[in-house]
This record gives sequence, structure tokens and C-alpha cells, in this order.
Amino acid sequence: MTIIVKKFGGTSVGSLQRIHAAATRVATFRSKHPDAQIVVVASAMSGETDRLLSLARNLTQNTYPRELDAVAATGEQVSCALLAMALEDAGVPAISLNAFQLPILTDQQHQSAHIERISSERVQNELAQGKTVVVTGFQGITAGGDLTTLGRGGSDISAVALAAALRAEACYIYTDVDGVYSADPRIVKQPRRMGKVSHEEMLELASLGAKVLHPRSVFFAMRYKVPLVVLSSFSHGGGTWIVSEDRIMEKPSIVGIAYRLDEAKLTVERLSSTSQPLKLIFSALAKEQIGLDMITQTGYSNGHTDISFNVPDEKSERALHIVQQLVPELGARGASLERDLARVSVVGAGIRYHADVAARVFSLLAGEGIDVRMISTSDIRISVVVPRKYCEVAVRVLHDGLIDLSETPGEIPVESVSVPAV
Amino acid sequence: MTIIVKKFGGTSVGSLQRIHAAATRVATFRSKHPDAQIVVVASAMSGETDRLLSLARNLTQNTYPRELDAVAATGEQVSCALLAMALEDAGVPAISLNAFQLPILTDQQHQSAHIERISSERVQNELAQGKTVVVTGFQGITAGGDLTTLGRGGSDISAVALAAALRAEACYIYTDVDGVYSADPRIVKQPRRMGKVSHEEMLELASLGAKVLHPRSVFFAMRYKVPLVVLSSFSHGGGTWIVSEDRIMEKPSIVGIAYRLDEAKLTVERLSSTSQPLKLIFSALAKEQIGLDMITQTGYSNGHTDISFNVPDEKSERALHIVQQLVPELGARGASLERDLARVSVVGAGIRYHADVAARVFSLLAGEGIDVRMISTSDIRISVVVPRKYCEVAVRVLHDGLIDLSETPGEIPVESVSVPAV
Repeated sequence: MTIIVKKFGGTSVGSLQRIHAAATRVATFRSKHPDAQIVVVASAMSGETDRLLSLARNLTQNTYPRELDAVAATGEQVSCALLAMALEDAGVPAISLNAFQLPILTDQQHQSAHIERISSERVQNELAQGKTVVVTGFQGITAGGDLTTLGRGGSDISAVALAAALRAEACYIYTDVDGVYSADPRIVKQPRRMGKVSHEEMLELASLGAKVLHPRSVFFAMRYKVPLVVLSSFSHGGGTWIVSEDRIMEKPSIVGIAYRLDEAKLTVERLSSTSQPLKLIFSALAKEQIGLDMITQTGYSNGHTDISFNVPDEKSERALHIVQQLVPELGARGASLERDLARVSVVGAGIRYHADVAARVFSLLAGEGIDVRMISTSDIRISVVVPRKYCEVAVRVLHDGLIDLSETPGEIPVESVSVPAV
Repeated sequence: MTIIVKKFGGTSVGSLQRIHAAATRVATFRSKHPDAQIVVVASAMSGETDRLLSLARNLTQNTYPRELDAVAATGEQVSCALLAMALEDAGVPAISLNAFQLPILTDQQHQSAHIERISSERVQNELAQGKTVVVTGFQGITAGGDLTTLGRGGSDISAVALAAALRAEACYIYTDVDGVYSADPRIVKQPRRMGKVSHEEMLELASLGAKVLHPRSVFFAMRYKVPLVVLSSFSHGGGTWIVSEDRIMEKPSIVGIAYRLDEAKLTVERLSSTSQPLKLIFSALAKEQIGLDMITQTGYSNGHTDISFNVPDEKSERALHIVQQLVPELGARGASLERDLARVSVVGAGIRYHADVAARVFSLLAGEGIDVRMISTSDIRISVVVPRKYCEVAVRVLHDGLIDLSETPGEIPVESVSVPAV
């Protein structure tokens, strides 16, 4: 039997009417694919998690992560039981299961727990009895029996992890957009909806600012080779498949331009060596929970070099202060900060196969007179840091110059079971 | 270590302010009794269970008991986690546990499940670590892992069952009245608050119309000899102990006058024998879920007799119809119905020890010209059925004539740990 996991986000179950609509959607799919077994993962009704957490916030100014998780976990318990009722009403035999009833085991990091193991036996038994199983997203239980929640993107992660545990054919993510686009429609007039992108590409896009999926869930899907489909729960048609790269046989291309505002660049000047100083800098910043990336080494001369890296803008003053205190120990000349930057990234497997992509990126930016402050690349990504005021124009010129709009994604047979091989 | 169970009903945790008040109450108790280990059982915030169930009612006209239980069970999960936070705020180390986390095992009768077994190990462990444990009332889990709710009076039952499982010294029931009264204050001007009643007496009172405790929870307390204390959560002082009869050494007395309106009396006339006809009548009525009691046999002559019994007024027409259809088979002359009756009951162990109580009951009723239609007695109860219009006057005259108002209950040391032996 083919197993399909379908995940409905908070807005997709945001009202009783929407719950019925989601149930109808599942019922339609089921009648077209009588051989498929269906597992539904649902979020809390939109606004409900906030309502629950604000009860606690209004009760106390202290934070009790374990109890907050116990409160928040009820949101999905309600939406899933209601969705199971709506499915029954729609003629689909259904049963709701809480994550603890499987169980979905997590570590003990309340409010941002990580899934460690899923026992799928109960789900398999219910599926074997012809039931559609509705599982609460966003949550799990520790080996010690305490409720946990997974943090941001949690329901997507639950769905992908369940799909992996059940060796599902695919995991459908119903959300409020109908697929993955080549750029933010607020910046680019006619972004292209991608018919298919690889996990790796999607991971880059998600990490670099695309909001449609949380990087954690994409990472999970990549690791366990779970094909994802991003679909709108409010319209039919559209959709983007996210699959293993080895399933994409067509010519590699550029799939999207992502951006992130609010970046800053910190430079440590005239270091005499790099490995020991880098260790000191990174551990000092990590201690303050300041993440950094895009480390670059520049201006080497006379055995001295400059080191630059990105930090989030809102933490940049603090980071500068920390690094300045290290300057004597580092044997550096000083540290400086440049704020009001943005990071624009070109993502696609085409970068790996077409050596000229990087050249085109810089040529396009130069054509607009955009000054590039930092560069970082992987085999499927080219990121540049530019002054924030040039962010939009950079996204637009890169999109127009690199995304092949003639490649229409076509309509994915949205409710199709099988993953398109090509 | 002494274990005390404290149960807070829906109104006692009905707002964030009330949750803080309940926590303060527990904190005060704890500071006075540093040796006591405390388990709190809480209901959902008042109105919350209704809100949750109305979501389901607005979603579908069908009834899905299993899913309804999953929805309803979230109410206590939220209130208990909030109460645990408030306890921590009040300086009491606390942890909330869902019934499933113990587990409290029940049968599979969704919406009115019965507790089968409680594992108290997790609770004991948390207590041993100095925690006050807050357990969700009203719910449990089946051996198969499905959430259940216990139905009406469920949180009281949870509390009493936990107290039994933990061999608690006592179970405090915080509610909106400050004890058990000798009669309904809407009828009797100055009913006496009882300082102490036996489980047996309380069971009769609860079954006969006293609303303060559900008969199921009293029955549980009696069966496992759990001392109960009924207290107001809104005031200090007052209180009624409900204990095993063998712990009441004082002279047996009458503890209360209970009443129930909406009774009807059904009479089957001139039966030639009773055992076979009674079997036919009872099984026919049971099939229609019509309960009956106070069966009396009257008017025996020439080998014929009349049989009367009580039925709830709203089911009486239906009951009459059923019995009338049986009349030929019963070999009876006919069946008749008298409606608009009430049942008034005198309860107290004094009935067992003082032979004159029954005589005084009838003398008091006769003094007011009240016609008694049926009589039923146990060793601690005398019930009479009277026309409904005489109900209030019957309650009043019996209360004034039988309850010794000079016996003041005194103030129970409300937050005391030890059960008063006398």
C-alpha cells in the first residue's frame, strides 16, 4: 500500500468551515486513489497557539517551558479531533492520535524539542483497518513522559518525520501559497513557480529567507529522502515538488533568488594568523548566542590578513563590543562594523554544472552599479552581501537575468500519488 | 509522609485570578504543614468544557464520542499546567501531569468512562522530589491508549480515586459552598452545616438530590474509606468532613433532609402474583432506559395485589404506555399514573439507632395534613413521596422537627491535616 502524508497548517484548519474543506480535500483524494493510505498531520487552528500561550503570559511573568508545552500542545489535540470528525462526516473513516499516543519521541528541550524516534505501529494498525489517521503536529513526548513542542516549523517537521517513519510515497504540505516561487512576489513582478526543485536547493532557499518551508523540515526531508509537495489549501492546481536531486533528470537550472535584510558585516583588521584568532572569536560569540556565517579572508599582505563575517544586524553592536575586547589578545589592529546590509542569494543546481553562472551574477550586479561587499558560494548557491538599499534591485536583476521564465512548470497533477521521476 | 489530595472545581480555577487564589491556598496549607505531600486535582476553567464541546457541536451534528473526549480532555490539561505555573509563582515547586501520564486507566466507555486502575508511581516520584503534583481531573486513558472522560462529577471521582490509590490522609473538595447542609437553603431558612457526616449518609444525600457531591464520587470514597472534606474555595472557615461511619463516635443523628421534584408513581392494579410480572415490567422499562425505584406492594386481598413504583416524571407517560401494553400478559386489571409528585428523604445514622424517627416523620407530616403516597426506608434513610405542592412544607417541617440545630458543627480546622476521630 502507498502511504501519503498530508499536512494542513493553521490557516488550513483555521475555522470550522476550513476544517470541513480540508476534510473534503482528503475525501476527494481518497476516492481518486482508493489504494492510498492517508495520514494527516494538522497544526492548531490559526491563532489558537497564541491564545493559549497568552493565557500563560497573562498569568505569570515567569517562563515555565515544560508547563507552556503542556498548554500549547492542546491546540493540535483539538484541531485534530475536530478534523477526524469532519473526515467521518465526509465519509472517510478517521481517528485522531496525539503525538504521545504513537509516540513521537523527542529530546527534553521544551519549546524547541527535536524528534528522536517515531513508533509507527499504532498508525500502521489504524491504517490497516481502513482508517485515515490524523496526527497532532508540532509536538511530541520525552522518554520520561513529558509533553514537548518542536518550535517554529514544528508541524512541517512532524509531517516529514512521520512520512520518513512510514516510508510514505510523499508528504503534501498544504499552505497559503501554491508552490515555491523563484523570488518574492513583493519584489519581482512575475516570479516563476517552480515545478520541481531539489531538497538541497530548497534547503538553501529556506535558509536564505524563503518563508514557504522551515529549513528544519526541508533538512529532515533531504536526510530521509522524503518527496515533498507544496500546495495551496485554498485553490486547486499549482504546486511544487521537492525531491532528491537524483530524481531530477532535466537540465539543472537556477530555481530561485532569495534575500535576507538586516545583515551586518564585522571585520577584524590585520591579524597575523587566522586559526587561533578565529577560534577565540567564534567561541566568544557563541557564548552570547550570536551566530555568524560567510567568513571571508581578505587583504592578505606581509603575513597579515583581514577577517570578515556576517552577523544579524540587531546583534551586531554587541558582537563588535565582544570582538573589540579580544583585539589585544588577537594581536589585531582593530575591529570595525558595517551595518545596513542585505544578503541576496542565487540558488540552483545549475551553478554546479554551468561555470558561467558566477560570472553572470557579477556582471548583472555590476550593470546596475551595485557594490558587492562579501561573497560566499556553495556548489548550488552564490550569496552576495550588498548595501540594503540595493537589495530589491539586485533581486530583480538577478531574477530577470538568470531564471528562465520560458520554462513553465506546467500543472502538477496536484493530487497525484506518484512522484514525477522527471 | 502524609499525602493530601486537594480538588479544585471549575469555578475555583475559573479565571487567572482564581488560579492564583487556589495556588495561594495550597501554598498557605503547605507552609503550615511542611510534612504533607500535596496532590492537586483540577477541573477545566469554568465554561471551557462547554466551549470545547460546542466547537464539535457546531462542526457536526453527528456524535463521535472518542473524538469528543480527545477535545474535552484538553480543558483540564490547560488549567492544570496554568495552576502548576501559579504554584511555582507562589513558591511551591510544582508539576502538572495529565491523567494519561500516570496513567489513570479507564474502561472504553467514552464520555462516561469508569476508572479501573491508577498507577501512582510517577506521582510518588514527583512528590518524593518535593513537588506538588497537579493532575488533570475528569479524564483517563484506556489500556489501548485512547483518551476518555469520566462524565458528570468526573473531577471529584478522579480526586477520590487518586486519594485512594495514594492512601491519602484526606481528599479536600473545594467547591462553591462551604460544606454539607441539613437542607436546601432555598427552602429552609437556617439549615445547619454538618461538621461531619458518614459516607453512607452522604451517599444517600447525594443520591437523593443534594448537589454538593456526585453520588459516584461519594461511593468511591466510601468503598475505599477516603475521608473527604467539602470546603468553599471562596471563603475560609466552614467545611464538612465526610468519613467512615466507624470514625464517628458521637451520638448518631439526622444529618439532612433531601428532596427531588419531578417524580411520578405508576401503579399496576390487581396482579395475581408478583415475581414474574415484576421481571417483565422491569426488563421492558430497562430496555427503554427508564429507571425505577421505591417499589411497593399494596392492597393485598383475595390473592391479588397492587404494585407501585417511582419513575422520573418526564419519562412517566412513556413508562405507562409500556406497562399498559403488558397488562394482558401480566394478567393485571390495568395500570395508572400519578404525576406531580416529589420525594422527600430524611437521612442519618440516627434512624438506625432510634426506633422512633419513623414515627416522628409521619407525625410531623400528618400535623401539616400532608398525604403520603409512598414510603421507602433503609437503615439510614426514610423517603416519602408526597404531592409536589407539599414538598417545601414537608422539607421544612421535617427539618425543624428532626435536625438538632443546637448541635453546632463548630469550625473545622479547615486546613488541618488530620481527620477528626470524634
